[in-house]
Amino acid sequence: MEREIFEDEHRQFRAAVREFVQRELVPNGEKWEKAGLVDREVFVKAAEVGLLGFNVEEEFGGGGVDDFRFNAIIAEEMSYARVSGPGFALHNDIVAGYLRRLASPEQKQRWLPPFAAGEEIWAIAMSEPGAGSDLKGITTTAVRDGDEWVISGAKTFISNGINADRVIVVAKSDPSPDAGSKAFSLFVVERGMKGFERGRNLDKIGLKAQDTSELFFDGVRVPHANLLGTEGRGFYHLMENLPEERLSIAVSAVAGSRSVLDETIEYVKTRTAFGKPIASFQNTRFVIAELETEVDIAQVYLDRCLERAVAGTLTDVEAAKAKWWTSELQQKVVTKCLQLHGGYGFMAEYPVAKAFVDARIQTIYGGSTEIMKEIVGRSLGV
Amino acid sequence: MEREIFEDEHRQFRAAVREFVQRELVPNGEKWEKAGLVDREVFVKAAEVGLLGFNVEEEFGGGGVDDFRFNAIIAEEMSYARVSGPGFALHNDIVAGYLRRLASPEQKQRWLPPFAAGEEIWAIAMSEPGAGSDLKGITTTAVRDGDEWVISGAKTFISNGINADRVIVVAKSDPSPDAGSKAFSLFVVERGMKGFERGRNLDKIGLKAQDTSELFFDGVRVPHANLLGTEGRGFYHLMENLPEERLSIAVSAVAGSRSVLDETIEYVKTRTAFGKPIASFQNTRFVIAELETEVDIAQVYLDRCLERAVAGTLTDVEAAKAKWWTSELQQKVVTKCLQLHGGYGFMAEYPVAKAFVDARIQTIYGGSTEIMKEIVGRSLGV
Amino acid sequence: MEREIFEDEHRQFRAAVREFVQRELVPNGEKWEKAGLVDREVFVKAAEVGLLGFNVEEEFGGGGVDDFRFNAIIAEEMSYARVSGPGFALHNDIVAGYLRRLASPEQKQRWLPPFAAGEEIWAIAMSEPGAGSDLKGITTTAVRDGDEWVISGAKTFISNGINADRVIVVAKSDPSPDAGSKAFSLFVVERGMKGFERGRNLDKIGLKAQDTSELFFDGVRVPHANLLGTEGRGFYHLMENLPEERLSIAVSAVAGSRSVLDETIEYVKTRTAFGKPIASFQNTRFVIAELETEVDIAQVYLDRCLERAVAGTLTDVEAAKAKWWTSELQQKVVTKCLQLHGGYGFMAEYPVAKAFVDARIQTIYGGSTEIMKEIVGRSLGV
Amino acid sequence: MEREIFEDEHRQFRAAVREFVQRELVPNGEKWEKAGLVDREVFVKAAEVGLLGFNVEEEFGGGGVDDFRFNAIIAEEMSYARVSGPGFALHNDIVAGYLRRLASPEQKQRWLPPFAAGEEIWAIAMSEPGAGSDLKGITTTAVRDGDEWVISGAKTFISNGINADRVIVVAKSDPSPDAGSKAFSLFVVERGMKGFERGRNLDKIGLKAQDTSELFFDGVRVPHANLLGTEGRGFYHLMENLPEERLSIAVSAVAGSRSVLDETIEYVKTRTAFGKPIASFQNTRFVIAELETEVDIAQVYLDRCLERAVAGTLTDVEAAKAKWWTSELQQKVVTKCLQLHGGYGFMAEYPVAKAFVDARIQTIYGGSTEIMKEIVGRSLGV
Repeated sequence: MEREIFEDEHRQFRAAVREFVQRELVPNGEKWEKAGLVDREVFVKAAEVGLLGFNVEEEFGGGGVDDFRFNAIIAEEMSYARVSGPGFALHNDIVAGYLRRLASPEQKQRWLPPFAAGEEIWAIAMSEPGAGSDLKGITTTAVRDGDEWVISGAKTFISNGINADRVIVVAKSDPSPDAGSKAFSLFVVERGMKGFERGRNLDKIGLKAQDTSELFFDGVRVPHANLLGTEGRGFYHLMENLPEERLSIAVSAVAGSRSVLDETIEYVKTRTAFGKPIASFQNTRFVIAELETEVDIAQVYLDRCLERAVAGTLTDVEAAKAKWWTSELQQKVVTKCLQLHGGYGFMAEYPVAKAFVDARIQTIYGGSTEIMKEIVGRSLGV
Repeated sequence: MEREIFEDEHRQFRAAVREFVQRELVPNGEKWEKAGLVDREVFVKAAEVGLLGFNVEEEFGGGGVDDFRFNAIIAEEMSYARVSGPGFALHNDIVAGYLRRLASPEQKQRWLPPFAAGEEIWAIAMSEPGAGSDLKGITTTAVRDGDEWVISGAKTFISNGINADRVIVVAKSDPSPDAGSKAFSLFVVERGMKGFERGRNLDKIGLKAQDTSELFFDGVRVPHANLLGTEGRGFYHLMENLPEERLSIAVSAVAGSRSVLDETIEYVKTRTAFGKPIASFQNTRFVIAELETEVDIAQVYLDRCLERAVAGTLTDVEAAKAKWWTSELQQKVVTKCLQLHGGYGFMAEYPVAKAFVDARIQTIYGGSTEIMKEIVGRSLGV
Repeated sequence: MEREIFEDEHRQFRAAVREFVQRELVPNGEKWEKAGLVDREVFVKAAEVGLLGFNVEEEFGGGGVDDFRFNAIIAEEMSYARVSGPGFALHNDIVAGYLRRLASPEQKQRWLPPFAAGEEIWAIAMSEPGAGSDLKGITTTAVRDGDEWVISGAKTFISNGINADRVIVVAKSDPSPDAGSKAFSLFVVERGMKGFERGRNLDKIGLKAQDTSELFFDGVRVPHANLLGTEGRGFYHLMENLPEERLSIAVSAVAGSRSVLDETIEYVKTRTAFGKPIASFQNTRFVIAELETEVDIAQVYLDRCLERAVAGTLTDVEAAKAKWWTSELQQKVVTKCLQLHGGYGFMAEYPVAKAFVDARIQTIYGGSTEIMKEIVGRSLGV
Repeated sequence: MEREIFEDEHRQFRAAVREFVQRELVPNGEKWEKAGLVDREVFVKAAEVGLLGFNVEEEFGGGGVDDFRFNAIIAEEMSYARVSGPGFALHNDIVAGYLRRLASPEQKQRWLPPFAAGEEIWAIAMSEPGAGSDLKGITTTAVRDGDEWVISGAKTFISNGINADRVIVVAKSDPSPDAGSKAFSLFVVERGMKGFERGRNLDKIGLKAQDTSELFFDGVRVPHANLLGTEGRGFYHLMENLPEERLSIAVSAVAGSRSVLDETIEYVKTRTAFGKPIASFQNTRFVIAELETEVDIAQVYLDRCLERAVAGTLTDVEAAKAKWWTSELQQKVVTKCLQLHGGYGFMAEYPVAKAFVDARIQTIYGGSTEIMKEIVGRSLGV
């Protein structure tokens, strides 16, 4: 179904993004996959053409455009082209939101210009070994010592973990047992700070061009000036950004599904089995028809969410619905489309094979399907 | 998610419809179920308050409003209240379309006033024993004899079959073997015409208040003036109305799903098992969360289809997607919600039990899921 | 796959059962459905040919055969013939087990001869309004008063509820709050006892020839001689019979699935759509192949369970697995086969339509799918 | 459910296999994955302890044991230990069958001793680029020239493709258009024959320790003495071995499923989320219970198939059912278990992650699920 949420400026932006993706990202995909991370300069190049920093205030070197449709366009074009390396969504959809909302003028002055220029890469460190999506389980501590905080602990599954220059770290700043959700604060830890070490680049089954690592903090002394937001409000700061984070994953899930489905439709028309195109088997037609219907339905729902995100009315429940349903749909699309490819679907060089392994994390990170269902269920009082 | 396709006039209309449904339909439900059909006068009452005839031209006694959202509101309110007897959707969503588009001024003069007033009940007779949804398999014949057509054959699964005063009959008017899709024409057969007999009211597992019957035509002589539309264009006339027919089923599927789900959410909160509300089990929460998500997604897609129907841009492929997906969703909703009711779900007096049996035909009539997938698949060239 | 668990005596018995089913049960099906219960004399006729009482001790008028394969054969033949009225499985698979294991010699003398002769019909009353499968929620009380117990409370969903002459009632015989699972005892309440009333025959969406009702006990005085088993051991007595009860439902689920599938295979070969047999569509073939595979797999698993039941080694976990999986499979079989019948599948006279409504209770009674999963999960320590 | 198909000699063999797997295979897994193939000497070591050659006639250096349960035990132990590199099943379950049934005494004398000793590695080359499982689409030709056959064409997806010393090649030996299924013959091509080249070791998303490659035949001259079986009977020779081939995949599917499920049950008991073990969430329990039930059911069905294979009564339809159902179940098991691992499930070092990528080919090779359903459907006349 025709999409109706975009205007001319979005369409022009999409064309530019698509051109950039084809020129700068697609040709490097294999190299980055082998290396396990992307070249840092791709962040700079992306910033130059407005794929990064566009939603940072103009006074700090950004584009000053706060319209999530632009975020969506970038994520869609990258997903559609099956480029999974550069952590642009992390910058645009997550870090930018934190900095815009939470950083003080002084911090913005310090941090935003190189962020907007793609010169400094950021990460956000929430998950810990043994804690998963469960914030209450965080054991990394931050202890105030004069004008500094002393941070100790370990984080894992950190995207941009190897490349990051600055990391927003969630730590327990209030050790009292009854601090509850007010125990946490956010701190910006920087490359080179003493006691801040990176673990190895984790070996994942997919998303191989994306660096994901453990981070270790052994008594890292962080100046109080690097406290992001309000002390003790870390939990709430995280919550506020969740709808857009989840929407961001849904965007890539739908575009990724569409990409695989389109490729598969072409494939089944050209490949033959038993003397006729695979497409001519009724089973193929029904599988394709089912996926086509569901991807279309997902797109329409997502576009309504995007409209509401732009209008500022998107709720966490709506984002949770979009996140779990589209990412589960993506699993279905990639595995069924892989099946239609026969043995070729198992060959790493085939787009559908890469999509199959890359997609598997989508129902897990950013809040698993199980957590999303908890959110939806509780909103109904069950 | 909030629905945004309605305006004030629709909201007022909905309130009136809801009041009518509660006052005139709900209290008669059990009586009509026992009788196997509704009282004819409910059509007159419905017409009086604008539930019938609203989309007939004003000069012929109608409301002159051609906006499918009104059709949707009526279907939604009836489905939500689980009133399955009165064949209003057949009048509003199907017959009205045929008459508006195909009837000549003379025919409109004859037929529309009593149609708009709910005084005459119409049916449309397509399916034949042994032919199902397959128009090409139709064997009922219409042979021209002077100013008359002589119609012979049998039809089955005809909604309003017992109550109908006039029946639009699809017949083969061109016996030549190469007539193909140009072999068919539409004829209006009337109560009392010689040779026109009704079979028994079919015993269905659900929709028990709706009369559904076989019709027999044994050399029925129909005046040429009762030819509806163009001779030999019957097949195309049928095709033109299909998107709205299918959308109509999708509307009732979504509203029916929502109704059962809302009722079930209340049920699981109040019923206990093993000493706590059923709602407090995680499995219950997850089932409810899944259904809530999918019904919401279905509603958003349907509303986009309704917008496009109003704008005249709804395609047959979009309608096919909406039809199969929402009616399959409805099966899932009713069977999972029934399960959550335990033994009570099997008791006919419980809303979910009635919904379970009533819903089962939705994936079959108006074009089965299999046919819808054929349509979607072929539109993609597979 | 060939079944290998039966011997000659079983095959002969099956032939006799099949003959009886065709002669005495099938022809009465419609009459009993209309009446909402079966004629009492069918129990006598069944006993005459060994379908009832065969597993009662010979000295009390039974056949003295304790081999669950005979139980299975009766349930299979009835399910395969889609005869759902006579509550023979309740007698053979449940009540007989209670009486054989728990009744004293004096009780056996009193109760078994008319039970074995089919002259007295039994029921077992566990479920209560508001308690479902949850024994701990039982509120019916039994208070000792000299040589009598005074029973007060209400039961619901009682199979054979209208026809029953004697009812095994589960009641709370120990009101102390810490009695826990030792609070319950079993009592045999008899037709005509003062204060024992039956509610209406419940209106179900399926199994219409089976009387299912509420039972009310208003200070019914039951002689202590009617205590079945040991006082305070009621809960454990119920537990002991559960594997066979659940196996019994699994038997009927598999045979019912096989019956519908066989009928559907014939149907799709003879019915045509779009000018060729429905069977010739690949989608039909795939649906049939999937169901055929799963019904075969279910049969093999069930037969292993039957072997183990005969050997006395069937565990409650194995029975729980068989129960939930085969009854869920049956839902899938009936709904997919109904779909392949098109509009005819919705007509009550079609076997698949009746199977669809009858089957719906299978995942609920005798321990719902949810409870079975609890049992399986807990057995693994999760 | 306890397995009952094994006797003491099988249990002793299983212990020996398990010991070998732990000692020789598991420690090399990572090395072989990196290398993309296994060391050749592992074949020799396996033969020394009876894991290879056991089902070759004793006079040719084998164990002389033709009992598929031994094959199953090897496949089970390797699958359970998640060792996917060494192509033992190809030797035991496929090549041994071909050689035993089809090789002439002279050929046996030449080929079996080094085969039984694990000194020569074999492959079988059926699939071609563009033909998949469709034998009729084979275009590799074999043209008789005196005492030789000249073979030209290309094969792909050949397991053991890099390591193989001898390859059974399916080629079209009769070019006449009406040769139909009698067009094909089998030839043994040997390492070093002129014109026989290997393509690269294919880059797969899983089974990374298994060499899989393309093979090219450019006018390879093969002596007539290397014709395996009867000229023109190649198609039928392939068919005869199919039930055991498919059973072999089903064996590894069930053992692989069991392995992942057992590991996951341990995982959810020890990992915590939101302050309690993941196992304590009802959703976890239900997922585990569902998988446990289905893996148990699969095992029972598979064991019946194994019994029948040993008895020589296993049909191709039964093998097809076992193959598709167990391999689809495996997909479900690995993806649901991965989900229960959260982010760790995406880490290549976790067993479930490796199982997820390795398992994906199971529904495709050896006859895809779609082809299996065709076989089952056709056997019923649909």
